[in-house]
Order: sequence, then structure tokens, then C-alpha cells
Amino acid sequence: MHKLLLLSYNEKGRQAYLKHVEAANLPELEIADSASAEVDLVFGSPALIVEVLPNLPALKWVQATWAGVEPLLDPTLRRDYILTNARGVFGGLMSEYVFGYLLLHERKILQRLEAQKNSQWEPSLTGTLHGKTIGLLGVGSIGTHLAETAKHFGMIVRGYTRNSETSPHVDRYYHGENLLAFANGLDFLVSVLPNTPETTKIIDARLIAALPTQAIFINAGRGSALDETALLNALNNDKLAGAVLDVFEQEPLPPEHPLWHAKNLFITSHTAAPSFPEDISRVFIDNYLNYVNNKPLNYQVNFDLGY
Amino acid sequence: MHKLLLLSYNEKGRQAYLKHVEAANLPELEIADSASAEVDLVFGSPALIVEVLPNLPALKWVQATWAGVEPLLDPTLRRDYILTNARGVFGGLMSEYVFGYLLLHERKILQRLEAQKNSQWEPSLTGTLHGKTIGLLGVGSIGTHLAETAKHFGMIVRGYTRNSETSPHVDRYYHGENLLAFANGLDFLVSVLPNTPETTKIIDARLIAALPTQAIFINAGRGSALDETALLNALNNDKLAGAVLDVFEQEPLPPEHPLWHAKNLFITSHTAAPSFPEDISRVFIDNYLNYVNNKPLNYQVNFDLGY
Repeated sequence: MHKLLLLSYNEKGRQAYLKHVEAANLPELEIADSASAEVDLVFGSPALIVEVLPNLPALKWVQATWAGVEPLLDPTLRRDYILTNARGVFGGLMSEYVFGYLLLHERKILQRLEAQKNSQWEPSLTGTLHGKTIGLLGVGSIGTHLAETAKHFGMIVRGYTRNSETSPHVDRYYHGENLLAFANGLDFLVSVLPNTPETTKIIDARLIAALPTQAIFINAGRGSALDETALLNALNNDKLAGAVLDVFEQEPLPPEHPLWHAKNLFITSHTAAPSFPEDISRVFIDNYLNYVNNKPLNYQVNFDLGY
Repeated sequence: MHKLLLLSYNEKGRQAYLKHVEAANLPELEIADSASAEVDLVFGSPALIVEVLPNLPALKWVQATWAGVEPLLDPTLRRDYILTNARGVFGGLMSEYVFGYLLLHERKILQRLEAQKNSQWEPSLTGTLHGKTIGLLGVGSIGTHLAETAKHFGMIVRGYTRNSETSPHVDRYYHGENLLAFANGLDFLVSVLPNTPETTKIIDARLIAALPTQAIFINAGRGSALDETALLNALNNDKLAGAVLDVFEQEPLPPEHPLWHAKNLFITSHTAAPSFPEDISRVFIDNYLNYVNNKPLNYQVNFDLGY
């Protein structure tokens, strides 16, 4: 019999996960009331799991409800268990987010809305995604979905990765020192990079300067990947046509932060790809069946790489 | 030798088409300076062609630069020539338009923009297209592209057509008297219907009442398909969550028209899918090669059906 600890930020969230897990009638599974010596499995939010790690001597496997598992990667914490994160469920949501803002820009939606307020017929030609070039910083399962959406809209797709070249929807891959060549000539730069030592402030003044001034930058990965001051300077000095940020070095973004009122910047509050309990529970359920059948688990995190 | 008359609303447009046609080095083709007895082919805007029809005794084939060819369908006009319209080039642009506004709605882009103006962190859950149901009024080449985009975003797709069932991306087709069953339970209703006698005010008070009150309606086909008064009443009485109109009974929409300030209505000025000379010229060039090689022409319009 396995004993599962389910951790969520509030009882409503916990009940939502519990409902989906119980409905699956998983074999040999008992739900634990609290962190205890018998708990061998945990399914929950990384920051909450950190708090109970010392109290789980029998721990074998943790399924995170998020894609980002930074709290559990702290090198002072134990790593004597299998850590899997949530993947394969955020691609569609991220595509909706990124392409919602790209289309807002190309279709001049806000400009046309202003004309409407003045009862003004505004037949100026629309822009189009077709034929434009998008650069993806990070091409894992989310980046692959973005690449597929981009190809659906007739775009040219570049990908920058450590070394993987797995997506068939990327026209050209770049790695390592070719970051500035990757940025050169892009219409849109989109980061979905995780927070790792190698991605810290990878989007810096040099990279931003390598983008055409009419380019748009979107950060839907982690705030740590962006030098926010460099972006602020570029936007306020018209070195970049616009940006969309969903993630920040500090979240919630403090009310006095200058980013709130930067020129041509859209801010969202880490809402690009929420974890819907139904989707994330399916990841756990599939992985639990792998676990009890001694099959390899999906989405294992490498503690050293950080993803 | 064939003699082609090229008609555009202004010299700049005409030069753009001319450039692409000339670059193709088409065999046995001469460009005419004006409507004359020798002209056997016309490539241009339908309303302009109507004016020169009586002066073209040798006319054999007209390639319209638009999808909508209403002016040429007037039953008092001659029909002794082959009429082809522009198809296959608007699907991508229409998808960008429709999904730009659907994502604006689901992702709460305007609401989040308001929060940003107040430097306010706004983490409310996003909506998603995934799992929602879209109904397409008209599933020709444009509707097929919309259906494919909808499936890419994980939506359920219904199609309402006269009788065709050709798109593999439509989950369920409806015809004839099943219009209200088609509308029942839709999250989004999108019309890309052409202007024909059968589509006149097909979107009326009864159809709108059959939609759920949280539904969104988009008209990117022709204004004649919509009873504008019925839509206005539904919006202003919260019987419908919102609408997006690109086409109107009268264009330009007059400044005093009540639609400009209807509740939850977005107005664009017939800009959803412009005719880009490069795309439309390719349609003409391909068809010209069919013509001189005695092959059937693409996109022939049936004068009686109106499309």
C-alpha cells in the first residue's frame, strides 16, 4: 500500500485534486491526512513540499503540480527521491497567451478600439503573423507547442536550446554562443526558459540590442531569465517596439515598480499557464500507474540541470 | 495573344498587381491600357468591373481580386463569361482576426490592462479556448481554415452549411432547418457567409436567442447576413456576452449609427482579411496558366448560387 500526501495552498484546491485522484480508483493507494513516517508519495506545490521534506523519511517520489520546481532544487535540500514535474499540459495555454498578445499587436486591436470610441471608420491595413519570424528561447514541451502554433500561422520559427533539436516545427536551431545570431532579424522573441543558473539574465542589454527595434519580446518562462532594467531602458528609449511580461524577478510585482508604467509594456500577473487540477491530476494519475507497474516516470527532473 | 485589363481603385494598387503579373512572364499576354474591344480578360475589383462590362465585347474570363463578388451578380448584368473569385488566400488572415478577438476575450486582456494602469497585481484565473465549442456559419476555404485553427487550440467545432461536409476539422455538420440546434450551447458563433439571397439576415433575433447568454458572436463574412437591430437589442440587454463585427449593412458604418456604442461590441472597419496584391496575383497567375492550357479554372463562381 502506498501513502500519498496531497499539498495545496488552500482546502478548495486540495479538494479539487483529491476529487480527480479518487475518481481514478488507483490501486494500492491511500491518502494521508498529514506528513508522516508512512508517506512515500507527495503530489503538490513545490514550495509547500519543501516545508515537509524533513518529516518524510519514507519518501520515494514527488509529483509537482507546477512546471517550475525551483524551491526543491536548493542544493541544501535532500535529493534522495524521484522528482517529476507537470509537463505536456501547459503548451496549449501558453500558445493562447503568446498568440493572444501577438495578434493584439498585429491586428492593431487597441488602435481600432480607440477609433471605435470616436465612431471612426478605421480601414488601415492589418498586420499579419504570416511570413514573420519568431524566436523561441527554450524548446521543450511548451516551446514545441508554440512552434507548432507559429507554423500554423505561416511563421518562420527559430529555436535556441542548450543542445536539443527535437521539435519538427522549428526551422532552424541555435545553441551556445550563437545567441545574438539567433536574435538578429527576429520579429518576436519569446522566452519560456526555466529558472536555472545558465538562464539567469540571459535576456540582457546585449541580447535586446541585437533585436530589431520593431521587435516584440514576451517572457512567459521565469522572471530570472530577464534583466528587467535592460528591458525598461530599451522600451522607454524606443529601442524595442513592445514587450509582454507574465513573470518577474519579484512576484507579486511591487506597486512602486517602474515596469508597471514602462512604454509599450503589457503586464500580466503570472497567469499565462495556470495549473488546472483536472489536467495536473491526469499527469499524476498516469505517472502513478507507471510507478506501481515499475515503468519509468514521465517528466523526471534532473536536479543538476534544474529541469 | 490575350489582352488583360487590370482594374484597381488607385494607381498604386494597380502598379502593385502589375508588378507581380509582369514578374511572372506569362505567355501570350498583353496588358491593356483601357477597356477596349480586344480585351478578353479582366483582373480587378468587382465594383470597378461592373462599370466596364458593357465595353468588353470580347470578354471571356474575369478574375476578381476579392472573395465577395456581389456587384457582378446583379441579375440585370451579363453572365456570358467565366467569373472566378479570390479564394484560398484569406483563411490565414481570417484565423488571425477571429482568434485574435477570441483570445482577447478568454485571456481577459483588456481587464488585465486596466489592472496594470493601477499598478495592480491581478492573478485571476484565465479562460481558455480548450474544450470550448465554436460554430462556423459557412465552411468553405475560409471556414475550413478557422476549423483547423480551432482544433489546434483543442476546441469542439460545429459547421453549418448548405450541404457540403468537406472539412475534416469539423466535428459535426448541420444543415437547413437545424440552424437553432447548431446554435444551441455554442460558446462562439462565427459567420463567414457570403452575401446571397439565402444568407440575408440569417443571423436574426431567433438565432441570437438560441445562443447561450455567455456566447460571443463574430461576423467576418458579409453584413447582409446579420439583423443588426436584433444584435443591438441582444447586446444592450445582456442577452449575449459580446460581439465583433467587421462587416455591416452599410459601409463605412455611418458615424451616428448606434452600433458604434453598443455594449460589449468590438467594431473593425472591414479589415479582417485584406487582399494583399502578392497573394491575389498568385491566384490570377495560377489561373491564367490553367486558362492558356485549357485546364479548368480554380474558384469559379456559380452566378445563381452567388459563390
